Amino acid sequence: MSFNAVLSADALAIQARLDAALAGLDDQPVIHAMRYAVQGGKRLRGFLVLEGARMLGVSADRAISAAAAVEALHAYSLVHDDLPCMDNDDLRRGLPTVHVKWDEATAVLAGDALQTLAFDLLTDPALGEAQVRIALVAGLARASGAQGMVLGQALDIAAETAPVPLNLPQITRLQAGKTGALIGFSAKAGAVLAGADPAPLRAYADALGLAFQIWDDVLDVTGDAAKTGKRVGKDAGAGKATFVSLLGLDGAKARAAELVTQAESALSLYGAGAANLIAAARFAISRES
Amino acid sequence: MSFNAVLSADALAIQARLDAALAGLDDQPVIHAMRYAVQGGKRLRGFLVLEGARMLGVSADRAISAAAAVEALHAYSLVHDDLPCMDNDDLRRGLPTVHVKWDEATAVLAGDALQTLAFDLLTDPALGEAQVRIALVAGLARASGAQGMVLGQALDIAAETAPVPLNLPQITRLQAGKTGALIGFSAKAGAVLAGADPAPLRAYADALGLAFQIWDDVLDVTGDAAKTGKRVGKDAGAGKATFVSLLGLDGAKARAAELVTQAESALSLYGAGAANLIAAARFAISRES
Repeated sequence: MSFNAVLSADALAIQARLDAALAGLDDQPVIHAMRYAVQGGKRLRGFLVLEGARMLGVSADRAISAAAAVEALHAYSLVHDDLPCMDNDDLRRGLPTVHVKWDEATAVLAGDALQTLAFDLLTDPALGEAQVRIALVAGLARASGAQGMVLGQALDIAAETAPVPLNLPQITRLQAGKTGALIGFSAKAGAVLAGADPAPLRAYADALGLAFQIWDDVLDVTGDAAKTGKRVGKDAGAGKATFVSLLGLDGAKARAAELVTQAESALSLYGAGAANLIAAARFAISRES
Repeated sequence: MSFNAVLSADALAIQARLDAALAGLDDQPVIHAMRYAVQGGKRLRGFLVLEGARMLGVSADRAISAAAAVEALHAYSLVHDDLPCMDNDDLRRGLPTVHVKWDEATAVLAGDALQTLAFDLLTDPALGEAQVRIALVAGLARASGAQGMVLGQALDIAAETAPVPLNLPQITRLQAGKTGALIGFSAKAGAVLAGADPAPLRAYADALGLAFQIWDDVLDVTGDAAKTGKRVGKDAGAGKATFVSLLGLDGAKARAAELVTQAESALSLYGAGAANLIAAARFAISRES
């Protein structure tokens, strides 16, 4: 199968797991908003869970609830990031954001309940023994809370009103939290499920996460709103430091390519078994959205 | 020890556990806001965890992270409930709410990270075997998400714009989610930790949770802002259905007293061991805040 075919197949399986988790709930706006918020997107984080697991001999059936969990967590972060008091975005994946389609209270609550759902999904006995599941809970908490994603988002907000734009080490640290931590957890989850050494997947994920964010900054400058499904030129227009403002467009692209080479070498010991993950790293710096 | 002395001692132990969990994090407003949000309060939910556990032979040292987890979860819900787009409260426990002291973005993020912290605390190996910890994670997720607290809060918001005030079954269901689910989880956590039958604690918690909420409605009418630490007369002023508007003040007090009698009988098999939990139930309908 081509990389795109695998990505699509994994996305379908993840959507089915999320649909099942959100079935049979109350007929309330907050529930409708949760279902809406988990539609669409590339499912790159869930793909990393499923393909990392597969590379280490763990079936998609066993790993699927962990893949759905990282996507529920990611969806919660997008709903809250889009709020008027945060990034104030009205468009996401080409559709109105949750607070635009419903209202702010529903967006806060839907995001809150999607975070809860993420942890709930990690209790699924299909994932394996309790020891494995509690390790996944701990890993997701570390990646997403005050030491991970939320910290990165807070640093990002602080940067907007800072007197001096961030320098490269500062923006690298910010992005390591905001984007890198959850991508890192997603890539390492397969090793937790398999009881394998997480070091190679961690090195892969660290490089991939940073390359991914650099490419987001590239797309903010070169991208097309119709393709990215969100407003472009936003960060550059706001005078925010980005990898492109700090390294130049060519420099940012070169750095991203270098990171993808690093991600590939981190998985060299797995040979052909790493093909899907390596294709994902190449995709991260060629995508148009 | 008197009930008040036990409540205070438990509150101190819970605060120490939360302080430890929030130590050593970044010097950022979102972290300061998290520490601020977990200060004060009666710690009734944490008390239920510790005293339910103690009644079943589980030490406070072993149960403390679960008690801190329910208080972190409760703190997150208060920070988000107070937001302008939700209840728009500027006063909580007699102090400015988080979005007033910092800003809305910090309040959203601090609440988000406190929810994450709650699940993180439940991975503490001191709580027992992985099987016990994963059962606690599943129980907290069920109590706080789209089938529990968040659903109750959504029903509450929907009620504000409903053409007809809620009736008694509807408001009972709303409160079972909004307040009862987390109180219920807190009271049952001791049985999970002890590997004991959760039924008696569940019956106790169901009655206590409802009595607690009825008394909140009583305080909204009869309370003193200086004592409750929040605005009073708010629900009555907004024309919202409450237990007091539906049952009358005397009827609401009588129903609360009846529920406390039920809570007491649910624990009769534990004899003197249940004294602290029974005192808590009596406290729920005599408190002034």
